[in-house]
Amino acid sequence: MDAVNTLIQTRMASKHAPRIPEVTAHLVGAGGKRLRPMLTLAAAQLCGYEGDHHIKLAATVEFIHTATLLHDDVVDESGQRRGRPTANLLWDNKSSVLVGDYLFSRSFQLMVETGSLRVLDILANASATIAEGEVLQMTAASNLATDEAVYLQVVRGKTAALFSAATEVGGVIAEAPAEQVKALFDYGDALGIAFQIADDLLDYQGDSATTGKNVGDDFRERKLTLPVIKAVAQATDDERAFWTRTIEKGQQQEGDLEQALALMAKYATLEATRQDALLWAETATQALAPLPDHPIRQMLHDLAEYVVSRLH
Amino acid sequence: MDAVNTLIQTRMASKHAPRIPEVTAHLVGAGGKRLRPMLTLAAAQLCGYEGDHHIKLAATVEFIHTATLLHDDVVDESGQRRGRPTANLLWDNKSSVLVGDYLFSRSFQLMVETGSLRVLDILANASATIAEGEVLQMTAASNLATDEAVYLQVVRGKTAALFSAATEVGGVIAEAPAEQVKALFDYGDALGIAFQIADDLLDYQGDSATTGKNVGDDFRERKLTLPVIKAVAQATDDERAFWTRTIEKGQQQEGDLEQALALMAKYATLEATRQDALLWAETATQALAPLPDHPIRQMLHDLAEYVVSRLH
Repeated sequence: MDAVNTLIQTRMASKHAPRIPEVTAHLVGAGGKRLRPMLTLAAAQLCGYEGDHHIKLAATVEFIHTATLLHDDVVDESGQRRGRPTANLLWDNKSSVLVGDYLFSRSFQLMVETGSLRVLDILANASATIAEGEVLQMTAASNLATDEAVYLQVVRGKTAALFSAATEVGGVIAEAPAEQVKALFDYGDALGIAFQIADDLLDYQGDSATTGKNVGDDFRERKLTLPVIKAVAQATDDERAFWTRTIEKGQQQEGDLEQALALMAKYATLEATRQDALLWAETATQALAPLPDHPIRQMLHDLAEYVVSRLH
Repeated sequence: MDAVNTLIQTRMASKHAPRIPEVTAHLVGAGGKRLRPMLTLAAAQLCGYEGDHHIKLAATVEFIHTATLLHDDVVDESGQRRGRPTANLLWDNKSSVLVGDYLFSRSFQLMVETGSLRVLDILANASATIAEGEVLQMTAASNLATDEAVYLQVVRGKTAALFSAATEVGGVIAEAPAEQVKALFDYGDALGIAFQIADDLLDYQGDSATTGKNVGDDFRERKLTLPVIKAVAQATDDERAFWTRTIEKGQQQEGDLEQALALMAKYATLEATRQDALLWAETATQALAPLPDHPIRQMLHDLAEYVVSRLH
């Protein structure tokens, strides 16, 4: 990870446009969990890789992630990310859009350097899935017709696509057998879904000191996530009118968040959502079976449990 | 070009997110000149290419171009493009950012399909140069210290990088000799610079019916382009104070555009800018020398002259 961090520092520099490292350093400096690059390194090493292209791929994956965060904050008009003001607030939307584009291009350069067309294919497809998922989320977010199937599709796009690409390219660069590459993909896919469901659940039950977000941000931003989708699916006519007003029409008033939480409690949707997250974490650990018996496999196993351990 | 257009239509579709083709169709439907994909086709055919990867590359180049237009309009807060309302006005900034990302990912998929790492390398580098140029423009645009060298760097980034990549990949896919590939790059680079200088000049002397822009948009948006940079370089103290107020501080009032035009007339900077554009067009035509004697070479020659023929 030290080598990855050094590469990230080097490649995010720009001779001509000092605004670029300023913005990126703010975000990278905020110290995300670096979960995605770690997955790439782990996957490559688990499959016995001995070269150094996995470091480039890990940095690639983190650059793609950072670029999407920058663009997300513009799209969400967010003011806070990882407990700090967002780049679009500190600089402006322009900087977030353009620096995001720059990081995406840099990621692209890095992956070309690995010389692996298969890796390029996987990451190009993941990028398209991510972008498509973001657009889908934008149009589906406040639409009460959004059901669990659409939610899953959005989650696969916005989160799981990069997780599964991160693990898959680790296996591909190590020239692992097809069965292992598929196992790595399946693990990343399920881990990403568990991770995102946990994130959406914590929006309603986390405390802002830990998550860096305020309880109910998704409700205020009129985002239909799993806890609400499950409540909408069981809603009485009156309750449906409540969701239509607050989410679809965005006419929110004092006490609405409390009412929303009461409806989620009525149908125990937070607990049902937690069960879904646990199930996806279990799917992730089971996917690891075809992979070599190795301390890293155990670490990936523990990671899947950790991702949902924050839930209660 | 028909095959390119068909491919563009097919690839801009999205099963899951209908907003994507909506936004893209608006822009693609507005009928840009399709200059960049045409350059790729021309370069490949001029070098005797007989496969069909040049069609994918031409669509790639147009997707990159369209993606940057979508993001530019967010950054510039533009209301009009090609004489029609911009996507960010018709939908919202979110759609422009995310659909731009989607098109960029799609372009990336298309170029991976050609299986040429050299092509990928060229386009990855061009993408990074474009993004860097955009950031540089954002920070340099209203800074009176911006001189002709910085302007040229911005122009290379925002315009010429994609022109030169468009012509270069045409030669590369045709496996043309190094000397011809270099000639194609040099031609695209000089053509792109001539094109952008002409565009910046027409902002001050074009009529909006032809250009789809209003005279003086760049002045109002406080963009330092060549006609102004040349006037600032020769400014008296009083004139410098005028440029500082109107461009750097953005405190514009009634009559300022007329005053700016008067200062450009005083130093004949529009004519000097036109001469620069003509010189770059001439550089472009001269770059063609090492290429095969072929009707397409003549067409590229005529194109360079055409780009500056709008100037008077």
